[in-house]
Amino acid sequence: MKPPSGKGMRLAHLLLSLASFCLATPLWKDRDALMQEEKSHQTGGNLVLSRQEQQLSTKLVNLKKEEVAAAVTRGAFPPSMHFFRARSLIDQSSVFSILKRMPKGAVLHLHDYAMLSVDWLVYNATYLPDCYICFTDTGTVRFRFAKPHPPRPVPAQCSQWVLLETYRRQLHNVTDFDSSLLRNLTLVTEFPELAYPSQAFIWKRFEEVFLVASGLICYAPVFKAYFYQGLLEFYEDNVQYVEIRALLPPVYELDGTRHNKSWSMAAYQEVTRQFMKEHPDFLGAKIIFAAHRMMNVSQIKEAIVTAMALRAQFPDTLAGFDLVGDEDEGHSLWDLKDALTIPYSLGVNFPYFFHAGETDWQGTSVDNNVLDALLLNTSRIGHGLALVKHPAAKSLSLKMDIPVEVCPISNQVLLLVADLRRHPAADLLAEGHPVVISPDDPPIFGAKGVSYDFYEVFMAIGGMNADLRTLKQLALNSIKYSAMLPDEKAKAKDVWQKKWDRFVADLSDSFLGEL
Amino acid sequence: MKPPSGKGMRLAHLLLSLASFCLATPLWKDRDALMQEEKSHQTGGNLVLSRQEQQLSTKLVNLKKEEVAAAVTRGAFPPSMHFFRARSLIDQSSVFSILKRMPKGAVLHLHDYAMLSVDWLVYNATYLPDCYICFTDTGTVRFRFAKPHPPRPVPAQCSQWVLLETYRRQLHNVTDFDSSLLRNLTLVTEFPELAYPSQAFIWKRFEEVFLVASGLICYAPVFKAYFYQGLLEFYEDNVQYVEIRALLPPVYELDGTRHNKSWSMAAYQEVTRQFMKEHPDFLGAKIIFAAHRMMNVSQIKEAIVTAMALRAQFPDTLAGFDLVGDEDEGHSLWDLKDALTIPYSLGVNFPYFFHAGETDWQGTSVDNNVLDALLLNTSRIGHGLALVKHPAAKSLSLKMDIPVEVCPISNQVLLLVADLRRHPAADLLAEGHPVVISPDDPPIFGAKGVSYDFYEVFMAIGGMNADLRTLKQLALNSIKYSAMLPDEKAKAKDVWQKKWDRFVADLSDSFLGEL
Repeated sequence: MKPPSGKGMRLAHLLLSLASFCLATPLWKDRDALMQEEKSHQTGGNLVLSRQEQQLSTKLVNLKKEEVAAAVTRGAFPPSMHFFRARSLIDQSSVFSILKRMPKGAVLHLHDYAMLSVDWLVYNATYLPDCYICFTDTGTVRFRFAKPHPPRPVPAQCSQWVLLETYRRQLHNVTDFDSSLLRNLTLVTEFPELAYPSQAFIWKRFEEVFLVASGLICYAPVFKAYFYQGLLEFYEDNVQYVEIRALLPPVYELDGTRHNKSWSMAAYQEVTRQFMKEHPDFLGAKIIFAAHRMMNVSQIKEAIVTAMALRAQFPDTLAGFDLVGDEDEGHSLWDLKDALTIPYSLGVNFPYFFHAGETDWQGTSVDNNVLDALLLNTSRIGHGLALVKHPAAKSLSLKMDIPVEVCPISNQVLLLVADLRRHPAADLLAEGHPVVISPDDPPIFGAKGVSYDFYEVFMAIGGMNADLRTLKQLALNSIKYSAMLPDEKAKAKDVWQKKWDRFVADLSDSFLGEL
Repeated sequence: MKPPSGKGMRLAHLLLSLASFCLATPLWKDRDALMQEEKSHQTGGNLVLSRQEQQLSTKLVNLKKEEVAAAVTRGAFPPSMHFFRARSLIDQSSVFSILKRMPKGAVLHLHDYAMLSVDWLVYNATYLPDCYICFTDTGTVRFRFAKPHPPRPVPAQCSQWVLLETYRRQLHNVTDFDSSLLRNLTLVTEFPELAYPSQAFIWKRFEEVFLVASGLICYAPVFKAYFYQGLLEFYEDNVQYVEIRALLPPVYELDGTRHNKSWSMAAYQEVTRQFMKEHPDFLGAKIIFAAHRMMNVSQIKEAIVTAMALRAQFPDTLAGFDLVGDEDEGHSLWDLKDALTIPYSLGVNFPYFFHAGETDWQGTSVDNNVLDALLLNTSRIGHGLALVKHPAAKSLSLKMDIPVEVCPISNQVLLLVADLRRHPAADLLAEGHPVVISPDDPPIFGAKGVSYDFYEVFMAIGGMNADLRTLKQLALNSIKYSAMLPDEKAKAKDVWQKKWDRFVADLSDSFLGEL
């Protein structure tokens, strides 16, 4: 590049010689303060770390930077890739192995039939005696435990019931068959972009997966064992407490007896107590009763009344109420307002934990759910991706101190965000809006526990600046925003803090060992 | 769903009967006010429309809703699809045909060699006499006009120069050959997901396209004709004024003579004047001199000094300075601060129009560009996708009244946003942050003018609530935030307003005609 000729050139040379003498920087005087302001706004930005935590934080951030640099060189940064392809890369990450060890506090957004790796369902549940299978016209399956035989008629568009034990005996390759069962129980596939062309399409497959699993899980012995094993999977992922959205459908016995919702609640309570007895450093589980948002207002009225009655019956275990299902397809909260205001009208304090803003559409009645959830006094917002497009709702949620339950992998698999660096929670974390991290339905997405979601947050959604403060704050948030009672929270905080201190000490030692 | 049995059931029935009598709604008392607050915050939310504009706005929003509903039914909503596949659908949209007719004011983010449909380059420029071509090892081409012969050596990794006229004469199928030239001049391809696996990869192809085009456009007669035809293409898209980021590389003559930057500036000025003379309702063009951000600080120092000299020489035409190229790969503004603070140090008022925040990485030095651009007193922010992750920078840009130049199709093609409903500008529009809409490099993306970008904004980024107020405000913004002088702005506003009034009247008539 050359300066222009003639008058322009002479002026240019004059300026250049002047410039080298007087490079002032007063423009930048506010830069440090503004960058500091952004840092202190960030989730965890105001936490004061111990010296040891600080050192660990620096090491962890450096480790992240190394992994990001290697990923960029390789041209494959896991959070920018579909999780189905990214998982094997994440499994090799040192950052991920640290996040697995980290005590993460509570998991607050999780669904009843999507807690536990599907391997357990296939290799344990379907090998129990008296398990029948039928094959649907669309290539999926249904399960039913029964003795002497499942009730007739068979489910719609399904083959006759076959005893699985008999069926497997006649197969040449049982391994292949069991693999096909695993595929029926997750959304995992090699080319998700081709398999799932739209949100509406993948939601249908998603609900189908629940239907397949429910035949197994709704069998009373499996129901209890699944929940126990589910708690164990989270416990082993260093989670101390969970809250489960549960539809409470009838659980059945071998003879066809169907239990009511109270039975299921009592079973959840009993299994939780048993689990806590055997794992004293686990702090419990609560249930959020959930109804499907496709139901009409009078059905939701009945559900609300049921929920209130169940809460009266199980005050320590039933935390409140939610609506589930594809938000774009279902009724808006506004549609259902006559049902959802019943507790208020009765002067009853009844907590809501609404899914809201799990949509890409803006300006629709469903898109108003984030605002309406807040007006209905929701305790948390499930997903809340639309919140960033609603400044009034966002400032209200901030004022009310209502956290967003962020489920990165779920949002990616269900086609709401492709590259997780662009997840709207990045804005929320940058602004310090209250947030908790949750896995939604880990086994269905091929994940396990909540560590993969923490990886996506730490590596991408929180950006390079996310550090140990961010992680600590997210763990603290998960306890603070749980439905635990004050004394339960105090105990949880205590147990978590001890685990955290040990985590910090152990990790500092192992980093030291590497030097 | 059934209420629980026993005590629970009795309570449930009691509650249900009570509830039907006392459905109060005081929870909702603020709902209308909050929704109104959000509406008034939105871009254009405070504009007062005439009665005719209001009626038109309602019709336009209804038309949008119909098209969205049809798209959802069809399972193909254009803004959620890649533009390469969406364009043919957009071409059939009635909303789009209205947006084409709308007077859009100014286009403020546009690059020198990416203004005009590539058909013109292939079917006009390459058919001029004395056009030579050579074929590179990587399957692309270079052009050069020369007489008697292009200078030696040939460009690196290129075949010998061949006279195109001779080359075409020996071909069996010239149509196919010309189509291959068209492909070399755009990024358009059938399966962009397969063709462009990463941002770094597509940026290389993107810069290659500019290299191919430059051999044609830098030939003096083509240079002037291209700019004239480019202005015409925007004029025909109902744009009244443009600002061009220009690298001002040497323009050459048939005998190999190379012109300097002043020559190019004079040519831009001369063509603009000629065009305005022939189209008195077109309001002009200004140039923003741009240097490549891969250059080092001393090269940028020289560029800045050159830019200041050029501005002294062409005060009405050279608006200021910018840096271009892949932001993730180039120097950050902070790296280049010693060059970029030269005008300030000299006490010279020298406007910047920085690209900043065209990145998905957060917490990197490049990610600080949005803040640093503001601290360098930028007049606008090009792209600014990262701004929503920088609350301090965002509140500063709001306070300074600095608009973001939003280029939806560019951002999608260059892999920053997949589904345009999720473009971060949705948040900015919802908050009423100053925004202008621009096309960046329309021909390279297979677009034309700025109407396609307005379509994406109106249909998706602005959501269902975006109406005629939004569009009017965006057009007004484009004039307000241009580099025009106050009297030029006043004139532009005047000309635009007359066109707007006619647009509203004509469109109202045609809607009336349909009834």
